[in-house]
Order: sequence, then C-alpha cells, then structure tokens
Amino acid sequence: MINLDKFSKDCQKIKEQSPLVLNITNYVAMNIAANSLLAIGASPIMSSFDEEMEDLSNICNAAVINIGTLDRPQIETYKLAAKCFSAKGKPWVLDPVGVGASKIRTQSSLELIEYGPSVIRANASEIAVLSGSKIQSKGVDSQHNSEDILEAAKELALKTGAVVSMSGAIDYITDGVRVESVNFGSSLMPRVTAMGCTASALTGAFVSVNPSAFESAAHAMLLMGLCGEKAAKDYIGLGTFATRFIDCLSDDIDIHRHYEPAK
Amino acid sequence: MINLDKFSKDCQKIKEQSPLVLNITNYVAMNIAANSLLAIGASPIMSSFDEEMEDLSNICNAAVINIGTLDRPQIETYKLAAKCFSAKGKPWVLDPVGVGASKIRTQSSLELIEYGPSVIRANASEIAVLSGSKIQSKGVDSQHNSEDILEAAKELALKTGAVVSMSGAIDYITDGVRVESVNFGSSLMPRVTAMGCTASALTGAFVSVNPSAFESAAHAMLLMGLCGEKAAKDYIGLGTFATRFIDCLSDDIDIHRHYEPAK
Amino acid sequence: MINLDKFSKDCQKIKEQSPLVLNITNYVAMNIAANSLLAIGASPIMSSFDEEMEDLSNICNAAVINIGTLDRPQIETYKLAAKCFSAKGKPWVLDPVGVGASKIRTQSSLELIEYGPSVIRANASEIAVLSGSKIQSKGVDSQHNSEDILEAAKELALKTGAVVSMSGAIDYITDGVRVESVNFGSSLMPRVTAMGCTASALTGAFVSVNPSAFESAAHAMLLMGLCGEKAAKDYIGLGTFATRFIDCLSDDIDIHRHYEPAK
Repeated sequence: MINLDKFSKDCQKIKEQSPLVLNITNYVAMNIAANSLLAIGASPIMSSFDEEMEDLSNICNAAVINIGTLDRPQIETYKLAAKCFSAKGKPWVLDPVGVGASKIRTQSSLELIEYGPSVIRANASEIAVLSGSKIQSKGVDSQHNSEDILEAAKELALKTGAVVSMSGAIDYITDGVRVESVNFGSSLMPRVTAMGCTASALTGAFVSVNPSAFESAAHAMLLMGLCGEKAAKDYIGLGTFATRFIDCLSDDIDIHRHYEPAK
Repeated sequence: MINLDKFSKDCQKIKEQSPLVLNITNYVAMNIAANSLLAIGASPIMSSFDEEMEDLSNICNAAVINIGTLDRPQIETYKLAAKCFSAKGKPWVLDPVGVGASKIRTQSSLELIEYGPSVIRANASEIAVLSGSKIQSKGVDSQHNSEDILEAAKELALKTGAVVSMSGAIDYITDGVRVESVNFGSSLMPRVTAMGCTASALTGAFVSVNPSAFESAAHAMLLMGLCGEKAAKDYIGLGTFATRFIDCLSDDIDIHRHYEPAK
Repeated sequence: MINLDKFSKDCQKIKEQSPLVLNITNYVAMNIAANSLLAIGASPIMSSFDEEMEDLSNICNAAVINIGTLDRPQIETYKLAAKCFSAKGKPWVLDPVGVGASKIRTQSSLELIEYGPSVIRANASEIAVLSGSKIQSKGVDSQHNSEDILEAAKELALKTGAVVSMSGAIDYITDGVRVESVNFGSSLMPRVTAMGCTASALTGAFVSVNPSAFESAAHAMLLMGLCGEKAAKDYIGLGTFATRFIDCLSDDIDIHRHYEPAK
C-alpha cells in the first residue's frame, strides 16, 4: 500500500524544486511528455544530441531514455547519456518502447540495461521480452496482462538491480523483493498514444526528488492512475480525454476522495 | 456511391483485428496520426529507422510513407520500407507531402512511386505535380480545387497502377477507371495541420483489412469527412475542433444520420 | 504604445496574403507552431533538410530557426537556411532555445547571429546568455525577470542589428533605441510547452507582411498576450488552456475590449 503522505510530499517537492528532467524521447511523446512534466511543476528539456549530453548531465537532475523512435545516432546518444548519468550517480529511467518488435530494439534495450537504469518502465509485453520469455511483441501495444508477467518482472528487477515499473490494468512496481500495485486508471489510457511514455517522464520527475527509486516509480504510477481515472469522468471521446488528463495533472489531485469510498 | 454496409464492415474489422500499421511519417503528424489510428481501433507503430524495416515489414499489416519532413537518411528508409512491403505483397500508402515545393521532394516522390504504392493519398496541388502538370506547388497547402485535377488524377492512377486518393472540398478516389467522390467534411479541416497526413494514416488501417485499395481509400476519406463534419458542429475554434475530431473518430459514427436528410 | 490600427492591418494582411513561413523548429513545437500559423491564416512548411533549403528560400516569405532539439545535421541546416534567407533579403527569426544549457547551444546561437537574423525571440535568461552576462541558464525555462534583462536586450540589439523580442511576464521588444512593452498574457503560458516557440513562429508570419521587424515582433507578442489572456478566462487546467489558446488565435481578437477598461 502506497504511503499517501510520502506521495503528497513528493508531489509538493516537485513543485518546490522544479527538477530539470532530460528527456531523450520519441517524436510522438515529445509534446505530451513536456506538457506533463510542466503540469506537475517539473522543468523538461528535450535533446537527442550527443554533443551536449555531458553538459546536460551536469545541470539535469534525472534523465528519461525512451527508444520509441530510435535510429543509429540516437542509440549512441542513449548510451552516452546513460553513461554520463550513471557516472554522476544521477538517476535515469529506461522506457524500452516496442522492445521485441525488432531485433535492434531488443539489442539496444539490453545494452542500455547494462548501464544501470534506476527504473525500467514498460508495459507487460515489453517486460516479458526483456526478461527473456519466448514472446514476440506485437508492435508497441501490450498483448499481455500485467499479473501474468509479475514473476518475470521480479526476476528482471533482481537480475538488473533496477526497479521494474510495469503498466497495465493493474500497475506493478517491484525491486524483486517488494511489490507495489496501483489499481487506478482507465481503460481509455492505452487508447491514447504516448501514455506509457508520459508515465516514464513523470517517473523521471519523482526520482529527481526521492532517493528511493521504488517509491518514486510507484508514486508516478499512482499519479498517472488517479489522473486517468479523474479524466475519464467527464470525457466525450479520446480527444477530450487526453486534454482532460493534462488538466488533471495540473490540478492538485484530491487523493482521499479517490482512495476512500464515498459515503 | 460508397456501399455503407461495406464501410461499416471495414470499420468493424479494424476494431476486431487491430491491424498493426507502420507509420514512417513527419514530426508534425506523429502524434495525431498515432492517436487517430488508436481511436479507430488500429495499432500504430512509428519508425524511420532503416535497420528495423525488414523486421517491421514482417509483423505489420501495412505501411504509410509520408515525406513531410524528409531528410537524407529518411529517404533511404522510405525506399527500403517500400521495397520490403511490396516484396511481401503487403499494401502501403504514399503521402507525397509538399511535392513540388522543392526538387528533392518531387524526385523522392517519383522514385517512391516506382516501388508500387497501393494508394497515393495527396491534395490536389500535389496530384497535379505528380501527374506532370506544369504547376508550382506553394508549400504544403493545396492551391487547386480537386475537381480541376480529376483528369490528371485518373491519368496518374492509370500510369502508376496505384489508387489515387485526392483530398479537397470534394474528395475523389480513382483507380483510373472508377471514380468515387466524398462530399463530406468541413472547411475547418485544411486549417488544422496534418489532417491530410491523418487521412493517409487511416487509409493504412483500411488497406490492412480490405484487399480492395479502391474501397479502402474511399472508406478512409468517408470516415474523415463524417468526423470532420461532426466535429464542426460544436467547435469553439480550431483548437477544440482538432480535439473534437479525435473524439469523433473514437465514436461510432452514425452514418445514416449523415447520409439521409433530416425530416 | 503599440498602434492598434497597424496591428489589425497586419493581422488582416496575414489572412489575405497567407504568407508561406518556413519553420526549422524542434520536435516539441512542430505541431503547435504549425497549428498556430494556420490559425492566424499563414501557411507553415516544416523542414530541416539541407538539400531543400535553397528551393524553400525561393518560395517562402520568411523563416523561423529554432534550435530547441538541435543536432549536428540540423546545425548545418540552420546555417544554410540563415545564409539563403539573408542572401535573398528575406526576413528570418532566431529562437535560441536553451542557449546556455550547453556549450554547443551557445556556440551555435552565436554563430547563427552572425548571419543577421531580423528578430531574436527568446526568454530573459536566454537573452542574458546571448548578451554575454555571466549567467548559467537552467534548461529551457527562464530564471529571470524580463525587466532585469532589458538593458542587456538593448545592448544585444545594438550589437547585432537584430530586433530583440524578449518574452516574460512583461514582454519587451527593442531595436536598441526604441522599446515596446506588452503587458498582456497569463501566468499559465510558461506552463505550456513551446509557447515561446509559438511566439517565434507567429513573429515569422508578421515579418512576412510588415517590413518593420520592430513592429512585427511587437505585433506577434501582442497577439500572443491577448490570446493567452483570453484563453485563461475559461480554462479548466493546462490541457484545456492550450486548446483554448489555439481557439483564440483562430478568432478575431476583440482588441478594444482588452485595451479599454469595461465601464
């Protein structure tokens, strides 16, 4: 069970400290990831340029590396960024989008894991591929239920030392020993593009203010779930839902109204 | 006249089969193209990386190649993708954005046509350029009425073997012999960026479930037109119109209400 | 004080002439910049491809060069575009996003200024860096009040010959001698990504129809401020605010209602 006081404290810290979060992310997610970080009070910077990774790793509090629209120069930038942030003891989040859809995505993701991400944030199919299951991923959308992949997620966490944050109808966050689950959200969320990437971006903000990657990852998924659930209360279709989701991120979520049943 | 039963059946098939559609598209359209495909039940994957084209052509049902923000590495990726999909007998859609605005756009588009697209989806000015008319395109927005370019569109279809899907106030779809027209939509549509690119993305979903490229292209334009018309009923400005358009794509459009006059 | 008749005339000219504005811009801003230009009646074309800069500089009325997501090939394209537009006596706008966050951003921006931009559009921290102040920029969000940087802005204008358009709670536009200020807008604006980039894009439209870069830059900031203020009147959160902002751009702003106090 997530400690709500700690969650609220982290949300408050993000607003106060406005951590600078480097996003090396895909072209689909660029705008929504930046807007989501701004909405919660963090300061995003987007770059895929190898020549500034050293400088940016000096001023940024955390990095999010998302391989959604990878290419050859970007793969080199991912690795350089991973190396810079790890060398400086700064946290970084890996989002291995579509791993399993092509050999190069799988290979790049496995190589990046060697650099020691703080959190691996992915959907169930992607976690299945990374954990070595004989599963073919179908594109970037998950084909698996997160509960069926939980054991694989725990093994992946133990093997890599990273916290594994697996999104799904129920989100699971595990360091291989502890498991946290988040049972909020909306079935509309996987029908809006880059929602997973947004979860990764927010995780980058939380790891900037909380030294526990496990708590950070759980807090990010809780915030996603609460906002998704709230946005789904008054949507017309998927367009307004996406807009309302950003609205909700920029609100102060009333946590207790969500956690406690109405009387 | 489009057969509405066939149209509805295709929409249903997309929801049931959730075809995987590869989008090699421009940076402006990335987000709206992905969201539009998700809204109708398809599964988008975005990539411009040559090293995974072979793998992606194995798992994807169709490809959409959109040259909107072309560069040298992407031109090579377009060609490789076109080659892979054609070699496997899988359909692909070409959107020659801004052809005529520069020599390299014209040259790249003509070279891509050699690889045998199933559908060429473009505005009237772009079709005019491709058909060899002595017309200078002005940027990416059309300067011509589609009815004035219909004969050129038919010739282009006959010459290339591709279905030509030309958007405009009236959309025309032709295989050089048959002509279908779609007289729905809204004058707001060309005032929202990447609406043409969205039409191409949706065409990629329809050709995934219907072996007739002619019917697929017409169904995609009909869906665009109906949603544009519906979204225009309750917009405030171009921002809400774009949001409502995605809402409408995620609705089940009530076709007969649109086709039959209210009593 | 901005001359409102001239402002209205420029807005009208943009609608009538629909100037073609080349945007060499970052991946975050692509969509909102294109939609903003379309909303006011201009015609955007996005490209970062060196091989078409010569052709595009022939047909476009102005260029906007925005270094937000720079990389090595893009830096070369920026320079080539700057050279082409300056050689043809066509106006171009420089947006040195995040200058100071890395050495390469600073170096690239200073090199681009050598090519003679008509307008340098940036936030206060970025202007401070460009003017040679010993200030470290923190990412892409401004850490300074625009009024504190006004003298530096004037010096930068005098030194470079460019109009400096500095956004902030109060926007200042200066050619080194004259200073115009715009005191409209909303505190929500810096909380939406790419709002500064949008200001630069709109400046590109205004310089296309008005030979005075000073007036053009001021008119663009006035339009930004009025729309931001109007959008803030009925927003729910940052998502709807961003959508409403585009709505307002596509409206005809009622200037006098904003300038004159209600009775």
